[in-house]
Amino acid sequence: MTTSLPLIPAADTAGGCCASVTGGVLAVEDAQRLARMFKALGDPTRVRLLSMIAAQSGGEACVCDLTEPVGLSQPTVSHHMKQLVDAGLVTREQRGKWAYYAIVPEVLTMLSAALDPETLQAGA
Amino acid sequence: MTTSLPLIPAADTAGGCCASVTGGVLAVEDAQRLARMFKALGDPTRVRLLSMIAAQSGGEACVCDLTEPVGLSQPTVSHHMKQLVDAGLVTREQRGKWAYYAIVPEVLTMLSAALDPETLQAGA
Repeated sequence: MTTSLPLIPAADTAGGCCASVTGGVLAVEDAQRLARMFKALGDPTRVRLLSMIAAQSGGEACVCDLTEPVGLSQPTVSHHMKQLVDAGLVTREQRGKWAYYAIVPEVLTMLSAALDPETLQAGA
Repeated sequence: MTTSLPLIPAADTAGGCCASVTGGVLAVEDAQRLARMFKALGDPTRVRLLSMIAAQSGGEACVCDLTEPVGLSQPTVSHHMKQLVDAGLVTREQRGKWAYYAIVPEVLTMLSAALDPETLQAGA
């Protein structure tokens, strides 16, 4: 981790969560971590599912409320959700019959900050 | 475009650039547009290339300066760059022998804003 990371102190990157696309040349591991999250978002259905969960009160939604708006079966929705969970963008909690998904605000904040061109000057 | 878009006035979305993942349930077209950009970023090499260009003075870099840091041939780098250009994240300009790539700050800003969880309250 020798990257210049103006947004987030280097010490904070030891945990492996944080780096900026626009804050200097990324270390390979940071780029891999970011790319994995972006890849999970590289599908319109998953982008919509994330937006639906984010729009719910508390940033949490039951899988039972996600199927109808996207017009897909529950197994298909669960498959998409697994990719968002695996990427660390969303958490999953089973409560009785249903799975509940919640966004991980700090990860979204990190991903948002990584794309912010306002860090350009700092990185240049 | 019937989506609630707290970050960006609805009028601005007519041009097709702007929607927020965290600002309410996304329209299908908005989700497709965002997913296309995220997909282009869903590769570690492309994330690194974008960070390298962003880190240059003026947010612009010659392809001749990108090959060595990523350790790939120029055709391979050009192939990756084409995907970033096609997604609208980067522009390409031929100057004599070399292609120059520049980030599109307003697109990165839009993408960054689309992931910002601070719009959660507005979207809920």
